[in-house]
Amino acid sequence: MMCKNDGYRIHRAGPREKIYFKPEDVKAAIITCGGLCPGLNDVIRQIVITLEIYGVKKIVGIPFGYRGFGNELAEIPLSRKVVQNVHLSGGSLLGVSRGGPNVSEIVDSMQERGINMLFVLGGNGTHAGANAIHNELIKRGLKVAVVGVPKTIDNDILLMDKTFGFDTAVEEAQRAINSAYIEAHSAYRGVGIVKLMGRSSGFIAMQAALASGQIDICLIPEVPFELHGPHGVLKHLKYLLETKGSAVICVAEGAGQNFLEKTNAKDASGNVVLGDIGVHIQQEIKKYFKEIGDPADVKYIDPTYMIRACRANASDGILCTVLGQNAVHGAFAGYSGITVGICNTHYVYLPIPQVISYPRTVDPNSRMWHRCLTSTGQPDFI
Amino acid sequence: MMCKNDGYRIHRAGPREKIYFKPEDVKAAIITCGGLCPGLNDVIRQIVITLEIYGVKKIVGIPFGYRGFGNELAEIPLSRKVVQNVHLSGGSLLGVSRGGPNVSEIVDSMQERGINMLFVLGGNGTHAGANAIHNELIKRGLKVAVVGVPKTIDNDILLMDKTFGFDTAVEEAQRAINSAYIEAHSAYRGVGIVKLMGRSSGFIAMQAALASGQIDICLIPEVPFELHGPHGVLKHLKYLLETKGSAVICVAEGAGQNFLEKTNAKDASGNVVLGDIGVHIQQEIKKYFKEIGDPADVKYIDPTYMIRACRANASDGILCTVLGQNAVHGAFAGYSGITVGICNTHYVYLPIPQVISYPRTVDPNSRMWHRCLTSTGQPDFI
Amino acid sequence: MMCKNDGYRIHRAGPREKIYFKPEDVKAAIITCGGLCPGLNDVIRQIVITLEIYGVKKIVGIPFGYRGFGNELAEIPLSRKVVQNVHLSGGSLLGVSRGGPNVSEIVDSMQERGINMLFVLGGNGTHAGANAIHNELIKRGLKVAVVGVPKTIDNDILLMDKTFGFDTAVEEAQRAINSAYIEAHSAYRGVGIVKLMGRSSGFIAMQAALASGQIDICLIPEVPFELHGPHGVLKHLKYLLETKGSAVICVAEGAGQNFLEKTNAKDASGNVVLGDIGVHIQQEIKKYFKEIGDPADVKYIDPTYMIRACRANASDGILCTVLGQNAVHGAFAGYSGITVGICNTHYVYLPIPQVISYPRTVDPNSRMWHRCLTSTGQPDFI
Amino acid sequence: MMCKNDGYRIHRAGPREKIYFKPEDVKAAIITCGGLCPGLNDVIRQIVITLEIYGVKKIVGIPFGYRGFGNELAEIPLSRKVVQNVHLSGGSLLGVSRGGPNVSEIVDSMQERGINMLFVLGGNGTHAGANAIHNELIKRGLKVAVVGVPKTIDNDILLMDKTFGFDTAVEEAQRAINSAYIEAHSAYRGVGIVKLMGRSSGFIAMQAALASGQIDICLIPEVPFELHGPHGVLKHLKYLLETKGSAVICVAEGAGQNFLEKTNAKDASGNVVLGDIGVHIQQEIKKYFKEIGDPADVKYIDPTYMIRACRANASDGILCTVLGQNAVHGAFAGYSGITVGICNTHYVYLPIPQVISYPRTVDPNSRMWHRCLTSTGQPDFI
Repeated sequence: MMCKNDGYRIHRAGPREKIYFKPEDVKAAIITCGGLCPGLNDVIRQIVITLEIYGVKKIVGIPFGYRGFGNELAEIPLSRKVVQNVHLSGGSLLGVSRGGPNVSEIVDSMQERGINMLFVLGGNGTHAGANAIHNELIKRGLKVAVVGVPKTIDNDILLMDKTFGFDTAVEEAQRAINSAYIEAHSAYRGVGIVKLMGRSSGFIAMQAALASGQIDICLIPEVPFELHGPHGVLKHLKYLLETKGSAVICVAEGAGQNFLEKTNAKDASGNVVLGDIGVHIQQEIKKYFKEIGDPADVKYIDPTYMIRACRANASDGILCTVLGQNAVHGAFAGYSGITVGICNTHYVYLPIPQVISYPRTVDPNSRMWHRCLTSTGQPDFI
Repeated sequence: MMCKNDGYRIHRAGPREKIYFKPEDVKAAIITCGGLCPGLNDVIRQIVITLEIYGVKKIVGIPFGYRGFGNELAEIPLSRKVVQNVHLSGGSLLGVSRGGPNVSEIVDSMQERGINMLFVLGGNGTHAGANAIHNELIKRGLKVAVVGVPKTIDNDILLMDKTFGFDTAVEEAQRAINSAYIEAHSAYRGVGIVKLMGRSSGFIAMQAALASGQIDICLIPEVPFELHGPHGVLKHLKYLLETKGSAVICVAEGAGQNFLEKTNAKDASGNVVLGDIGVHIQQEIKKYFKEIGDPADVKYIDPTYMIRACRANASDGILCTVLGQNAVHGAFAGYSGITVGICNTHYVYLPIPQVISYPRTVDPNSRMWHRCLTSTGQPDFI
Repeated sequence: MMCKNDGYRIHRAGPREKIYFKPEDVKAAIITCGGLCPGLNDVIRQIVITLEIYGVKKIVGIPFGYRGFGNELAEIPLSRKVVQNVHLSGGSLLGVSRGGPNVSEIVDSMQERGINMLFVLGGNGTHAGANAIHNELIKRGLKVAVVGVPKTIDNDILLMDKTFGFDTAVEEAQRAINSAYIEAHSAYRGVGIVKLMGRSSGFIAMQAALASGQIDICLIPEVPFELHGPHGVLKHLKYLLETKGSAVICVAEGAGQNFLEKTNAKDASGNVVLGDIGVHIQQEIKKYFKEIGDPADVKYIDPTYMIRACRANASDGILCTVLGQNAVHGAFAGYSGITVGICNTHYVYLPIPQVISYPRTVDPNSRMWHRCLTSTGQPDFI
Repeated sequence: MMCKNDGYRIHRAGPREKIYFKPEDVKAAIITCGGLCPGLNDVIRQIVITLEIYGVKKIVGIPFGYRGFGNELAEIPLSRKVVQNVHLSGGSLLGVSRGGPNVSEIVDSMQERGINMLFVLGGNGTHAGANAIHNELIKRGLKVAVVGVPKTIDNDILLMDKTFGFDTAVEEAQRAINSAYIEAHSAYRGVGIVKLMGRSSGFIAMQAALASGQIDICLIPEVPFELHGPHGVLKHLKYLLETKGSAVICVAEGAGQNFLEKTNAKDASGNVVLGDIGVHIQQEIKKYFKEIGDPADVKYIDPTYMIRACRANASDGILCTVLGQNAVHGAFAGYSGITVGICNTHYVYLPIPQVISYPRTVDPNSRMWHRCLTSTGQPDFI
């Protein structure tokens, strides 16, 4: 009998002595959900390679995430040959999308297709779905392993040191930041703004600012700030233009949502559609300096899609390799309803519910955020 | 006596036997105007190095273009040591800006500073200014050489094979196009849109599309198109999504201006502010596919500032080197009111008025545009 | 009847009104010979795509150059789907090699396979082979088109402005030169040496030196030099270390062969195996400065394989696209024994014998070489 | 009184409440010793910036490592302005070298110059020197802080999770590996060999192999292997060429030294000069396949200098920033004879003697090495 997950304990990841599936009986499926993230192809590749090492012959990709279970889209046959070089390109070989059929329909489709191992690459919503599928499978008494690999470029999964794609995102963000720096620095009273990913968590913005050494102001969702007012961002910007002649701002997409009109719109993944803080700040800056009679030359860069579509760098490549291997080891060990990760430098299996309750965030009292503040030299904006 | 330019003839560029300035009497100034363009630092660097080879000791940069003549901004002393590695970064060491004082004020400032060689890096408007300065200097009977180096990333200067920065722009555009391709390809009914530079001329869009091999639709200012209607872009897009599953569009910023509300706003350089065709197309596509009940997943990338801020690639590096050397040779030969360029594979001097009357454009009947159409497979959109 | 080539005339390349093959009767084969060169996959890709546009259904790749005709290696079926993204990787999809069976055996194999269009990507030796095949086919009265695409990273084909891969090579060489510059500059009495491609011609070394602005000494096959002696390279190097503290040398592989022991060894392509001038210079420099009691810190970089294996840059991508299209147009127009190229800015067809008699070389009296000397500041080394 | 280090304990790094130097009394010096490593400029930059934040005015760089103490080379004045963008280039702003005057002479020179804070960036030998300087200073009763920052691209420092430059090296190694893969894959019976850094430790080779997914055989100093014999590398290579058609080998420079003639030569840092295992393997492979009558096409790449001269990537940039800040905090806290590092995810101060006794190595029984073996699919070569 399968051991599934035991609800709360963390297990060290890796191969187990006993395996709960005969490789010749396995039909494994892989799906990628949500938005793009560097490393998706690396994880897919490694899952396929490791399955083949176990001796599995039937491996397929379900196209376009959960959606692929709901319609007539053909399965994508996978093998070492197919995936050999996919990690050299960004994107997802299988396609991604948000939304899809409901849990019961997905499980129906899995039964029809004879899938008894499902690897799910996605974020919080996707993992919630994976867990629901896992529970439905148990309810139906089916011996199927459902294993998640957390995919969030924002690096905001609870308990995990780092999620794949994050390191690449920070690296690629350097290019945008350096462009903004050069634009700002070469302009008369130049202000460069870079909007980076980070719906609830400012990890990318913080690390990218720290790595670049070129950011004067870093704004993240975890740290409230004022734009106007005596301690606001605009006042500090005025000071920077007077003393340094130019300034560069890096803002996480989820920062300063209080300045934007609330919408109740949600995307197909169920995420609230955020207002565009980058555009808002750009407009406020332009207006402010025009009003005080000394216009600034504002350049706004949104590199989001150029970062997401990158191939994984070497560091993420290794992380993806290990996560992919462990996902397969976990499934063969009979775990289900789990996800893989790196936790306090150790690779582990975690029950899905443990990691999806809320997003991990930057601690404003942490050393890392203070290092970031030291590096930017920015004051409190309250 | 200085020979200035002779009004219409093209001269082969290069060093002359006789020089019209004693190097020890020369005070040379360099200015960079308008927006950023890869290679500005390369040209500055080469002008400085070549001036030093001639024996010039007094070389300065005027900060922030013509604006630097109008206020108290300090001159930037230049020497081989200062410029040695500036070509390894993008931007302009001297700063750029639009606008500035009027011609008479500029010439006053030049006289005060004792400048008798002025190297002007800029676009059409900047060259018109340089020519006016040249004429005013003649009127005042001053022996000053004014030499332009055409800076237009759009590659739209009359008579010239290629302007510096263009090759780099096409190269860097590949990165954005490939991101758009990956986003579109990985999405369900994905459409990637890349807006590229090109106010009046579609050279960057055309060449970038041709080089990438990943563009399905290329839209440029020179070729009218319809969005709606039986032969419009949207219809073709629908066909592409049905047959290929995804599509990538590359649009020059000056294309399809007829779809946008005319504003009479002009920027500080006197250029009409264009409507944003990229955003417009994005919205029309979203609306169209929503209306026909089969939404598309549209991703829009505007890499403009990330392209402009790049350092020059090797090919542009060589072009900048030769242009910079020739600018100095021309000034020492006593030419004024000229600009340097490469014309039918030869490096030449041209009288400024010859090149600034209107922008060079893509010929819709040219082989290159037809090769582009072959590559994209797009029909006429009329 | 096929028109073949007319022995001496140059024809403008492009599609013709009449075509000499029914697309449905065509079986086209592509081979790549010799060493790697950026752009091979781009040309292959474009030939395949253009053949499909003409309506050809039977397209194959012969693996590993002429060798593939000689043994039991399977043909590689080619189609738009197969080649869609091959230009994003370097190398050759089909494999390359030197040598192979004799002309008669190749033509036998072509007859057996039913090939009536052969596209040959390779250098001088390969083109000589293509011409011999063409002649043998005529002798046998077979209606087969043999069309070459010159592949030489050295850019040393007679009459041609530029061959594909050259621009990329110059670009990639920057990386090695910059590394050598940093190593030399960061070391005490540091000397960086970069060996670049160029068996008979110094185009890559010259252009790479010019583009980088970081080279002090550029040595090419066309310009004789002495190492020792009062005007030798070593004396100048001593001067550079005393005045600048470091120096960077760029040497083409074919330079200074007079210093090396002659071998009569030839590689499988029939090229004489060159002595290693880079290693030789490195050793002579070390010895010289040790002997004068003031050792230099010498770092030697040979980036050859890292340059050859690159994917084509945008500029070469466009060149490859046009050459590939023209190769197919030429074959359909009934030409045979020709090769495609760009000649004085025009794309043309040339009879093979016209271009292979000897390699094109750098003219030591040309402006470009003099610009290079100005840039490096090096004296005559004789 | 200064607390120096307490001989064996590890302290958490960071600012302390009490500082043991008045900033206005401090004259701080920075030196960089040994070979280049990505991130040197980042650490220099951050030390300077942090010193300025403490209020230090006198900051200098000693040129070319310890050697700079021994002769008349001028100190390099450092300030935020000087170092602002140095992290954008590789190398060391201060120059590096091996060797130098003896400890007593160095301390004499420090006294003359009035240096009371010394930051030493270097490897094991350099740290041994720093410790000796620290002891000599104590013997002379001088209140001087000597703080090391471990610089070893090989990542082979005891107790430390990671040293700066390592991550960048693994990243850059990908480029060489991919070139070798493409060369091998495009050749008939192609073998690509990449030699990577790692005198005693195979971390770079192991991680680079794991990240690339393109390596078939990874050879490191920690794991003995045979070339010839029934289980040797050559036998496996033969198998790979027969089954896959090509193979890629990655070898650490310190691997297989038993195959090479022992020399007793040492470099100026006192390191034994290693034989060139890369060249040796290349020759043995060529010979072997020639002898068995089926030659292989072997391509050898040594990217060492191109990797060392890189600028730091984002991840190393952050590590360097934190190490640089902590080095200054440590000095101001009155520590001396210590070095900074990251140890079990925490930033710490360690007494120098604790970390230099021998190099950290790859554990052949570790999970990471086993993951590498899984990835390459290589057997034991004994």
